[in-house]
Amino acid sequence: MFPNKKVQSLVGRKIHVEMKGEQCVLEGVLKSVDDYLNLHLSGASEILEGEKKRSLGSVILRGNNVVLINPLLKE
Amino acid sequence: MFPNKKVQSLVGRKIHVEMKGEQCVLEGVLKSVDDYLNLHLSGASEILEGEKKRSLGSVILRGNNVVLINPLLKE
Amino acid sequence: MFPNKKVQSLVGRKIHVEMKGEQCVLEGVLKSVDDYLNLHLSGASEILEGEKKRSLGSVILRGNNVVLINPLLKE
Amino acid sequence: MFPNKKVQSLVGRKIHVEMKGEQCVLEGVLKSVDDYLNLHLSGASEILEGEKKRSLGSVILRGNNVVLINPLLKE
Amino acid sequence: MFPNKKVQSLVGRKIHVEMKGEQCVLEGVLKSVDDYLNLHLSGASEILEGEKKRSLGSVILRGNNVVLINPLLKE
Amino acid sequence: MFPNKKVQSLVGRKIHVEMKGEQCVLEGVLKSVDDYLNLHLSGASEILEGEKKRSLGSVILRGNNVVLINPLLKE
Repeated sequence: MFPNKKVQSLVGRKIHVEMKGEQCVLEGVLKSVDDYLNLHLSGASEILEGEKKRSLGSVILRGNNVVLINPLLKE
Repeated sequence: MFPNKKVQSLVGRKIHVEMKGEQCVLEGVLKSVDDYLNLHLSGASEILEGEKKRSLGSVILRGNNVVLINPLLKE
Repeated sequence: MFPNKKVQSLVGRKIHVEMKGEQCVLEGVLKSVDDYLNLHLSGASEILEGEKKRSLGSVILRGNNVVLINPLLKE
Repeated sequence: MFPNKKVQSLVGRKIHVEMKGEQCVLEGVLKSVDDYLNLHLSGASEILEGEKKRSLGSVILRGNNVVLINPLLKE
Repeated sequence: MFPNKKVQSLVGRKIHVEMKGEQCVLEGVLKSVDDYLNLHLSGASEILEGEKKRSLGSVILRGNNVVLINPLLKE
Repeated sequence: MFPNKKVQSLVGRKIHVEMKGEQCVLEGVLKSVDDYLNLHLSGASEILEGEKKRSLGSVILRGNNVVLINPLLKE
């Protein structure tokens, strides 16, 4: 399964996303994703040193600034 | 709804945008957006630690440098 | 008006441009722009903390490294 | 062999990946890769100063933020 | 003249190029350029605080990491 | 010769490559390159302040994170 298909298979699940920039880590439910790995998360929170720092609700993340995507429940 | 369509659905609303670079956070009314997530905001302000720092008026933001878009009113 | 058309409408006007990188802020007259937001400015200056730091004359700026474009005269 | 084909030839092997951002180094088994060098790793770990710092399991890495890929077993 | 045509018009001239990254400033004669603003310079030097720091000879610069191009002789 | 052709002409030669990120400088023999300037090097080493710091063997480098390519033998 190609990497983008792997991400599409995570729609509806809670994911952990690391973005470019200093300490920008988010968790939320993946609502949709396109081929550029642009992401739409609902119920998103910003995470700092493993703790929830800020509730953001609905966020859209630009794919080219996504570094790493990690499903939160083990496969 | 794909992430770019989600952003298009926010035209006319006030949004919060985090850009690449140190502490570049903006808020303004989304006037238009294209498929690259290039954004045109009116009445934009630069935000620093949650406070309005500088009024910018009309700004165009380059999509690839957008990290996160967050509608300011809850859905 | 899409964001790139908005920038095209600024040709001939003085604009403020923030680039990726530390404190790289420029002002100059927009001579031309393409769909990637590559910019050609004439009479450009580098701006540091709101003051003119260095005269650069004619400069070409790579679109993907443009963060923010702001027309200098209010609309 | 073109660089992307070289990476495709590493599917099933353990690789070392350096990402953009501060000290983001990962090791894991390459499950799939596409032409953009988006990577899907299984059994991935974050590495800090040559030591395993954190187990991540399955991760997807955005190709444009990959700096360097290095097969862990010598060729 | 579009920005990329403007750069093409500088072939054969000495240019000043600012790259992404810390203090990466180069000067050299522009041998060729393509539509991505990939640049080939000959007789290139690295410049630090306005002084020649290191001779590099022939260098190829990746267009997306070019921030600013400035012809060294006034137009 | 366009910049990418210039790099293709270096296949088989030892090159010096500066990548985005802090002090990521590599040297190695260029095995292959594509139009995105993705590079495959063999016998690669990481270089720190002009000295060989670490042997890496075979590495693939993502083109968009290449800043500068410099052939090691003078032309």
